[in-house]
Amino acid sequence: MNKNYQNLIHRLEEISRLKGVMSIIQWDQEVTMPTGAAEARANQISALAGVIHERMTDKILGEYLGELSVQKHDFCAAEQCNIEEACREFDLMTKVPKQLVQAIAALSSRGHAIWVQARKENRFIDFAPVIQEFLKLKREWAACAYPDSSVYDANIALFERGTTAAEISVIFDQLKEALIPFIQELEHHTYQPDVSFLQGYFPVEKQAALARRISEDIGFQFDKGRMDVSVHPFCGGSHSTDVRITTRYNENDFIESLYAVIHETGHALYEQGRMPDASDLPVSESLTMGIHESQSLFWERMIARSRGFCTHYFETICTAFPGNLQRATVDTFYQAINACRPGFIRVEADELTYPLHVILRFEIEKDLFEGNLSVGDLPEVWNEKMKKYLGIIPPTDTVGVLQDSHWSSGAFGYFPSYTLGAIYACQFYNALRKELPDTDKNIEAGYFVPIKNWLNQNIHRQGRLYTPQELVLRITGESLNPQHLIHYLKSKYSAIYKLNT
Amino acid sequence: MNKNYQNLIHRLEEISRLKGVMSIIQWDQEVTMPTGAAEARANQISALAGVIHERMTDKILGEYLGELSVQKHDFCAAEQCNIEEACREFDLMTKVPKQLVQAIAALSSRGHAIWVQARKENRFIDFAPVIQEFLKLKREWAACAYPDSSVYDANIALFERGTTAAEISVIFDQLKEALIPFIQELEHHTYQPDVSFLQGYFPVEKQAALARRISEDIGFQFDKGRMDVSVHPFCGGSHSTDVRITTRYNENDFIESLYAVIHETGHALYEQGRMPDASDLPVSESLTMGIHESQSLFWERMIARSRGFCTHYFETICTAFPGNLQRATVDTFYQAINACRPGFIRVEADELTYPLHVILRFEIEKDLFEGNLSVGDLPEVWNEKMKKYLGIIPPTDTVGVLQDSHWSSGAFGYFPSYTLGAIYACQFYNALRKELPDTDKNIEAGYFVPIKNWLNQNIHRQGRLYTPQELVLRITGESLNPQHLIHYLKSKYSAIYKLNT
Repeated sequence: MNKNYQNLIHRLEEISRLKGVMSIIQWDQEVTMPTGAAEARANQISALAGVIHERMTDKILGEYLGELSVQKHDFCAAEQCNIEEACREFDLMTKVPKQLVQAIAALSSRGHAIWVQARKENRFIDFAPVIQEFLKLKREWAACAYPDSSVYDANIALFERGTTAAEISVIFDQLKEALIPFIQELEHHTYQPDVSFLQGYFPVEKQAALARRISEDIGFQFDKGRMDVSVHPFCGGSHSTDVRITTRYNENDFIESLYAVIHETGHALYEQGRMPDASDLPVSESLTMGIHESQSLFWERMIARSRGFCTHYFETICTAFPGNLQRATVDTFYQAINACRPGFIRVEADELTYPLHVILRFEIEKDLFEGNLSVGDLPEVWNEKMKKYLGIIPPTDTVGVLQDSHWSSGAFGYFPSYTLGAIYACQFYNALRKELPDTDKNIEAGYFVPIKNWLNQNIHRQGRLYTPQELVLRITGESLNPQHLIHYLKSKYSAIYKLNT
Repeated sequence: MNKNYQNLIHRLEEISRLKGVMSIIQWDQEVTMPTGAAEARANQISALAGVIHERMTDKILGEYLGELSVQKHDFCAAEQCNIEEACREFDLMTKVPKQLVQAIAALSSRGHAIWVQARKENRFIDFAPVIQEFLKLKREWAACAYPDSSVYDANIALFERGTTAAEISVIFDQLKEALIPFIQELEHHTYQPDVSFLQGYFPVEKQAALARRISEDIGFQFDKGRMDVSVHPFCGGSHSTDVRITTRYNENDFIESLYAVIHETGHALYEQGRMPDASDLPVSESLTMGIHESQSLFWERMIARSRGFCTHYFETICTAFPGNLQRATVDTFYQAINACRPGFIRVEADELTYPLHVILRFEIEKDLFEGNLSVGDLPEVWNEKMKKYLGIIPPTDTVGVLQDSHWSSGAFGYFPSYTLGAIYACQFYNALRKELPDTDKNIEAGYFVPIKNWLNQNIHRQGRLYTPQELVLRITGESLNPQHLIHYLKSKYSAIYKLNT
């Protein structure tokens, strides 16, 4: 084996393992750490982050990569991918001055605390300087990291590399055009799903048992993962054999927690399904945020919000919560969990209104970075867009412009991934049903193995061998195309709301 | 502030924080990690261990220390301690060739697996080569690390620095002389405590609640720590604000688990009580294994196996396990939990027989390293000594020479600390009662605050400012003296067994 390549692999594996350690102490911080240890943990994370940064920007790594880049064509596809991904990462890490990296990290930490307070007190004015400062730092950062891109494209590249704001605009405009009038139509329609029976008292231990069972049914391997409780649901862990999902329980709403578990299980199946013989190497890593989100939304929406899924689990759910669902049938349950209700909060949105929450944020971010919007005008623009897209105006900034944590940590350019993920999920689902025509029947029978295997084979084990654009083309024979999501949403919701009857 | 000293502090803090990270992923491995992640975790631990070793042996650290050692007298006691401890650690780490360190680490890992199997199959012959190989490597190690000491003294120094096998022999001989005939006397005495009511069914959740309450009562701060379940009870965690104890539950024996929790709480109070303004520096670290063990045994034995403690908690325990303890009184309960019963297993031994288990191992280790005992003769010598000291012969090596894990990981020289800790605990307890004459009353009233404060003040916050020898002298006005433990045990057990009545 090529000596330089061998050295590279050792270095990359070490970095991956140290990052795995970081993931565990971050998981621990959210799930198990005693509250009094916050300061000590911040110091530990900072020390480890320093080591990882040092390893990732080590000159010797750069030397190996320099030599290997020239010899790249002597290597197989997976090896080439390791070299290319390592080069990309190394370039990104070394192009940006350490001082700037530290300034952004410091602002993230400070910004988060300011945001928590500002959101609590409904004082956008306190948070505005943080956004202002981030715009400045992120401009500097973009000039170093992606000198050939626009500032917003550079930020998007962190989560969705190979995709530009211009491309996203084209896609999002199609969604807006189709979904805004459709949502209005549903809202004014006479038939509305009954959602009243979803309210009640649902004991936490029953919710946990149900969520665990369904997570296991759809393929989560509990010998290679865990399920716990945290303030915000997430999927973490240190390795494909150590994947950890969390949820939170609300005694008055079991749907929220259950679908959070299914969502996180979708992420977890991606991680557990990575190519096993390269688990500490870049080639096996998840592709982009959009593709990751496509996996969680695939299970949460395409599968678990389908009629077949409701049919399969209705009895089980009724047994878990006897009394609560006496008035419900499979049909009314299916309608209730899919009801379209324009609301203020993104994370509580249904499939149909969710994209508009994302589009609003995307447009605001784009205008901010392009200098077409000043930070002071954010709340007003937010509320105008909410009125235009969803017909409602947030009564406070707390449930408006201050609701999400993303900007407080500088994660500009992240939001589009949620909706790109939803579009991918829909296209993957269509491809699956074409290839495996029994899919609907299988879902109704609770037989998820062929679905999971198909995802493992076509997506999870492909790692970073292809770009997202290549991947969607290979799997669906087509590029990213929002019309599939539009068609899916329109036909699903037309049926639920009995539009044509 | 001295620039070199400032640099040293930054380096030491970084090392301490990375070690804290290591502690968390090790705790996670024992408590929360999914079983399938074992291999990935081993790789993560190895990567982090490599980083820590690199930091601890960094030449620049050596340069700072070289300059600071000369200027030592410009610094205050705590600063001097940081310099000295860092020097000692650096010398120890750099004196031993990396190859030898790796060989010992590899044998520990392999040795543990072989020991598990050999113990299971009662095949000492399979484990003997591991001991043989360790003796060889540990001789090489001692020649590098402590060239002026005997091999066994070098091994003891890892856990109990400043103490030699010769000194320990003098102490242990006194214990043997007093305890062996005394145990025999108790065994043949007519009056024997009734222990039958300690058997029964004790629901795990009741045990856990009781243990948690008592742990909190004696001072464990749950906002700076946790209590969980693991195969072997231990005290871990990453910082004085993140101290984690574990236990295991046996539905048929609540005493074992409860006293394990109290024992680990003793360790935890030491860690939680470290000097708060130097928590990532050597001066605040625990002193020796013996002193650490003195803190766990202080609570487990001196406090929690006292009559006053039984008086205070008897009602609570009876309420937790109604039915089981109907036949018991405070007196019979106190006698039962203290009953002297010579057995094969060290970790199940009572206060009186425990030292003899330790002495047996100490003598064997000493003879092995001094060349007076060959590995092949170990089982025979073990059984002879068991007969001589406790009057019983293990029916298998599994419950004899193979019972402990220590030798499988090369921890020779560790055992004496258990009994040195017991002696320290007794001397500290006597000093406490002299200083705070209300102690017995306080224990009976469940008022443990003055006791914990006294330990915080006199021991925990002293960190490494004194040697153990200086510390015991400061606190008790005397050197380590086993006669106090002998006196305590004889009078306690004479009363329990009604020897003079």
